[in-house]
Amino acid sequence: MLYYSEYLALDAVLGAQHMESAKHGAPAHEEMLFIITHQTFELWFKQVLFEVDSVIRLLDRPYLPEADMSLCLSRIIRVNKIMAHLAEQFTLIETMTPGEFMEFRAFLNPASGFQSLQWRVLERTLGLPEQKRVLRHYTEPFTVEQLKQLDDASSRTTLFAAVQRWLEQMPFMEHGEFAFWDAYKSSVQSMLDNDRREVRVLAEAEGTDPTSALEQIDANERSFLSLFSAEAYEELRTQGVRRMSQRATLAALFISTYRDRPLLQTPYRFVDAIIELDRLVSLWRYRHTMMVSRMIGMRVGTGGSSGHDYLMQTTIRQRVFDDLTSLSSYLVPTQHTPPLPEAIESRLQFVNERPGL
Amino acid sequence: MLYYSEYLALDAVLGAQHMESAKHGAPAHEEMLFIITHQTFELWFKQVLFEVDSVIRLLDRPYLPEADMSLCLSRIIRVNKIMAHLAEQFTLIETMTPGEFMEFRAFLNPASGFQSLQWRVLERTLGLPEQKRVLRHYTEPFTVEQLKQLDDASSRTTLFAAVQRWLEQMPFMEHGEFAFWDAYKSSVQSMLDNDRREVRVLAEAEGTDPTSALEQIDANERSFLSLFSAEAYEELRTQGVRRMSQRATLAALFISTYRDRPLLQTPYRFVDAIIELDRLVSLWRYRHTMMVSRMIGMRVGTGGSSGHDYLMQTTIRQRVFDDLTSLSSYLVPTQHTPPLPEAIESRLQFVNERPGL
Amino acid sequence: MLYYSEYLALDAVLGAQHMESAKHGAPAHEEMLFIITHQTFELWFKQVLFEVDSVIRLLDRPYLPEADMSLCLSRIIRVNKIMAHLAEQFTLIETMTPGEFMEFRAFLNPASGFQSLQWRVLERTLGLPEQKRVLRHYTEPFTVEQLKQLDDASSRTTLFAAVQRWLEQMPFMEHGEFAFWDAYKSSVQSMLDNDRREVRVLAEAEGTDPTSALEQIDANERSFLSLFSAEAYEELRTQGVRRMSQRATLAALFISTYRDRPLLQTPYRFVDAIIELDRLVSLWRYRHTMMVSRMIGMRVGTGGSSGHDYLMQTTIRQRVFDDLTSLSSYLVPTQHTPPLPEAIESRLQFVNERPGL
Amino acid sequence: MLYYSEYLALDAVLGAQHMESAKHGAPAHEEMLFIITHQTFELWFKQVLFEVDSVIRLLDRPYLPEADMSLCLSRIIRVNKIMAHLAEQFTLIETMTPGEFMEFRAFLNPASGFQSLQWRVLERTLGLPEQKRVLRHYTEPFTVEQLKQLDDASSRTTLFAAVQRWLEQMPFMEHGEFAFWDAYKSSVQSMLDNDRREVRVLAEAEGTDPTSALEQIDANERSFLSLFSAEAYEELRTQGVRRMSQRATLAALFISTYRDRPLLQTPYRFVDAIIELDRLVSLWRYRHTMMVSRMIGMRVGTGGSSGHDYLMQTTIRQRVFDDLTSLSSYLVPTQHTPPLPEAIESRLQFVNERPGL
Repeated sequence: MLYYSEYLALDAVLGAQHMESAKHGAPAHEEMLFIITHQTFELWFKQVLFEVDSVIRLLDRPYLPEADMSLCLSRIIRVNKIMAHLAEQFTLIETMTPGEFMEFRAFLNPASGFQSLQWRVLERTLGLPEQKRVLRHYTEPFTVEQLKQLDDASSRTTLFAAVQRWLEQMPFMEHGEFAFWDAYKSSVQSMLDNDRREVRVLAEAEGTDPTSALEQIDANERSFLSLFSAEAYEELRTQGVRRMSQRATLAALFISTYRDRPLLQTPYRFVDAIIELDRLVSLWRYRHTMMVSRMIGMRVGTGGSSGHDYLMQTTIRQRVFDDLTSLSSYLVPTQHTPPLPEAIESRLQFVNERPGL
Repeated sequence: MLYYSEYLALDAVLGAQHMESAKHGAPAHEEMLFIITHQTFELWFKQVLFEVDSVIRLLDRPYLPEADMSLCLSRIIRVNKIMAHLAEQFTLIETMTPGEFMEFRAFLNPASGFQSLQWRVLERTLGLPEQKRVLRHYTEPFTVEQLKQLDDASSRTTLFAAVQRWLEQMPFMEHGEFAFWDAYKSSVQSMLDNDRREVRVLAEAEGTDPTSALEQIDANERSFLSLFSAEAYEELRTQGVRRMSQRATLAALFISTYRDRPLLQTPYRFVDAIIELDRLVSLWRYRHTMMVSRMIGMRVGTGGSSGHDYLMQTTIRQRVFDDLTSLSSYLVPTQHTPPLPEAIESRLQFVNERPGL
Repeated sequence: MLYYSEYLALDAVLGAQHMESAKHGAPAHEEMLFIITHQTFELWFKQVLFEVDSVIRLLDRPYLPEADMSLCLSRIIRVNKIMAHLAEQFTLIETMTPGEFMEFRAFLNPASGFQSLQWRVLERTLGLPEQKRVLRHYTEPFTVEQLKQLDDASSRTTLFAAVQRWLEQMPFMEHGEFAFWDAYKSSVQSMLDNDRREVRVLAEAEGTDPTSALEQIDANERSFLSLFSAEAYEELRTQGVRRMSQRATLAALFISTYRDRPLLQTPYRFVDAIIELDRLVSLWRYRHTMMVSRMIGMRVGTGGSSGHDYLMQTTIRQRVFDDLTSLSSYLVPTQHTPPLPEAIESRLQFVNERPGL
Repeated sequence: MLYYSEYLALDAVLGAQHMESAKHGAPAHEEMLFIITHQTFELWFKQVLFEVDSVIRLLDRPYLPEADMSLCLSRIIRVNKIMAHLAEQFTLIETMTPGEFMEFRAFLNPASGFQSLQWRVLERTLGLPEQKRVLRHYTEPFTVEQLKQLDDASSRTTLFAAVQRWLEQMPFMEHGEFAFWDAYKSSVQSMLDNDRREVRVLAEAEGTDPTSALEQIDANERSFLSLFSAEAYEELRTQGVRRMSQRATLAALFISTYRDRPLLQTPYRFVDAIIELDRLVSLWRYRHTMMVSRMIGMRVGTGGSSGHDYLMQTTIRQRVFDDLTSLSSYLVPTQHTPPLPEAIESRLQFVNERPGL
């Protein structure tokens, strides 16, 4: 006979709220909210890690059956709903006023910040590169064992690596002739030429200097053209502008372009969900930074800069899948999309739905 | 030195997920989501109970300083944000398909339903009357100790009783002359007369029978007039149409009517927050019922009725503060609101803001 | 040169707020919120109708290419996000207190209620059956032209009919031998037998009478078995227990059961999204009813019943796709799912992913 | 007889969707979503401006009755709910894929960006200082008349100015003796000394250099002490570290510190709501920037920087009420809060609730 409360181990879970303020003889009502907010964050982080780990295991194989692709998609969608829910959860802790936080903040030292091991593990599991993580003096006093867990997370296959591997295996890139990539290049270039015209017209109308805007379009074009040149691509990787491999990036562009073909529908949804995951992790960080600034103020630093600004600027750069997000710059309208070689087209259909049958 | 993970007892909290499907040798991926969803619900229920209990303690005293009124308001607002967040949380568990639930549902028997002791305690703490609680064959197999906790919750002061007591102590009802209540009655009656005219016009235009609509307005009028007659009011309480005491109900109407006066602003916000709490508890139940119907289907019962319909209809009647919600029927526009006697008016102001000064 | 404000016709849109209270010389601040809330509801209803209409057109054809299935899914997902957003939008209008509504409510007669033509059109477009729509005395004073629009909506193909047609065309039902349906029946029946055992054990433990619970399981079993008998199925349709055709219902059960096969992944997501749409339309109605009860009170009717209760009970029965929602009752765990005939299995794969290759 | 559809001018509102793609003979389904999303944004912006304008008018007077303070609070809370809802609304437009946007983007030139006059008016109405607004080459091609509207908005009293004026009029700052400010200073300084101790302990444990952290605490202390020195305060204003007047800032600190006193409860909630408004406007911008980066990619600029990063960094600095947010740095726990002089204390109570009575 399985009781609900035993199954959920509610004795352990609901018995885990130990208020430091009470131990110090000055019980602060809001400490309960502080504890429970963090505990539910941690429970959901466990769930997120559980899902992301399972997706990595599914992707990180020599061959991925389509049935499993659908599973990967469902799980990333779930992770995204959880992350959106957790970003929203900051509205609950924000019902605590800064003054109420003051009542027990001193008792928590040095735990007062957000020092979640699971969050750090999640960053590594997603594949946040070393140099983008928050700087050392924001890191936390972890135990030796916890630091080992962090190292382990760093050494395992990341979601970034697994997605990259899966993309690199996309078979349609090898097959047939690749004349359609040439056609694709022309489409994008005429689109960028159009951008240039607009910039000039606008600059003339406003009496401003179009130089920097035009330079940016040039940089976009170089970046786009580099997708097709191994050396140019590597150069951008060295500069840190790109991180994903050329082959994987091209596969992602292929999927985005021919996303309506039956075989590419689920992969496209998956790539889109990965981009959204990146956005939602970023949103969580943003909401967290905003909450911190509300609770402890935006301590003014030397020279007018503030801890808040610094933290925020670091925060917004911590994205993992910029390579995928940036591809939208190179999409072209359907009527300009080059047709696929028949040899490839037929392989993107279902058995009884080949074109021409 | 207080470590974050020790402070939050993360070993206990994050070690409390025991998957029954794994024990039975058939690990079902989605069971983790099932467990963690319920555990976070339970953690937040603990927080809700913590806040509601504190509000009851604050209200259930011979005298409530205004500073504490503000505290009560803040805490109910917090509870409301939590309840809204939890209603939304069903979107997370709903990422599990009914088929995925099937993979482990059999292992949970008889715990498969939602058998939360804390929820039952919360219902009693809010003051849900015995007859409105869900029927016996939906109740849960609680242990003897748990049933005792339920009994305890039933015997303590409920939020309903505490709010009623606080309202009954509202001092302004005794003071001065009460001619303004007579003026108020006239205003409402002319409003209802207007309703009658409309109904007749509409019925004529549509060629329908206005009888039942007019009867409803008559019933409204009787209900309103009964607010001022001890016997008529008691009659309605006996019928179950009203539950709160006459004095408390009149005080709530007074607060709603003169809500812009400084002394009544926070009380008005509080009454409004209590009405919203009722709505949000109801929303949680509604979302829960919808989730259940998605997961296990709307099992068709005898005669075309379904378990879902039955549960839903029971659900929507489980409101605690109908007495307060129903008061909006008797509000009148500002220009028809009778002026207050000066003796009362002056007592609703701040020291240095008395009217006429 | 296309200006943003001209493109969006902002002169028309932002010039369309005409406050009746101002015309009557008693400007009520909150009337603006009332107007803008309803106008944004209407704009989003237009979008919802635009999407649902497009899905109906895509589905209501002799043959639906898989590429279009994906489009249908994306659009229903979009509709669902809109409906969830609109349900949440009630929190905005609820910042208006009942007293503030009173200040201008009388000026709106008889428009004070929610008399949205588009909502009525949407109900018909989804396929809400005549008898489930709200009763006559809640209907609205529409103009002759508007009533014509309603009639038109009733005579066009509904989403219900289009989904049914699409399901009926599912080709795999005809092919091969159908021994797997027999195996499926056995699985479900042993599952229901298990339910019966549980009910008896529980009843014994609690000392209660299991009769009604067992009768419900019997009814479930009959309902399930009726899926395979043309006459029994028709009988249930006559009773109103089922509404969708037998063939469409079986196809939906097939899709739900074999949802991981590549060809069925998108159809399964689509069926699931349709069920969620039903739930979200219902949630919108629920939130609307709650808002109304807050604004104008729960006017007490004769015999203790209230307008609110009546409206709410009508509301919760207005579901269109119960046939699909109820299928979860008949899902079986994967290990009990009968294997598909090879002839069918191979047709659910991609060209280069046939099983055994 | 007022019809719902006429009252809401639905002919105008629902007839205002003109798809450019259709005019160009290439109807793009998603353009409807694009149009309606922007139109609903604009309608809600109108509502936000309507509320903020009314609050400015209420605040910008020589004397503000408490009843109106409550009104100001309710309206800012409403604005905040609207802004949160609008931030969430980006999830709807994000159901459009970048590829779908490509189908009609070219037809919109140069309107393709977000060129909302109302948003620019809102920025000026809130009081966003000139130098914090987005740079020129992101500004929009407004008509002459629209530019005039912008200028008008810049010349009217801003919310920032109105809040500042209201705070400056707070009467309790003049009265009685101000020894409690001295006590307050001591409390904060001992709190900062404690911060210093922690930093040193942590640095020693980690073997890092505490210098920069200690410098930041020193800067905080200077900033705090400057609150009480007219010259030091002006110096910080010149540097752009502070913007609000010294008197207003001190009043806000007073309100935050003695927020539980009856007379200060509503003012405190108001200050808190203003801080949240700032956060929510910022959240809207953040979500907008994220949406743009999804739709048109994160165009890579020269030297590895991107348009996205640039926009985002500009975005996060655009806050209006940093002066208020930053005050949380200087709150002290209740037990360290100095008692108020009796002459002031009694003025913060209600008529019949003076302390000692």
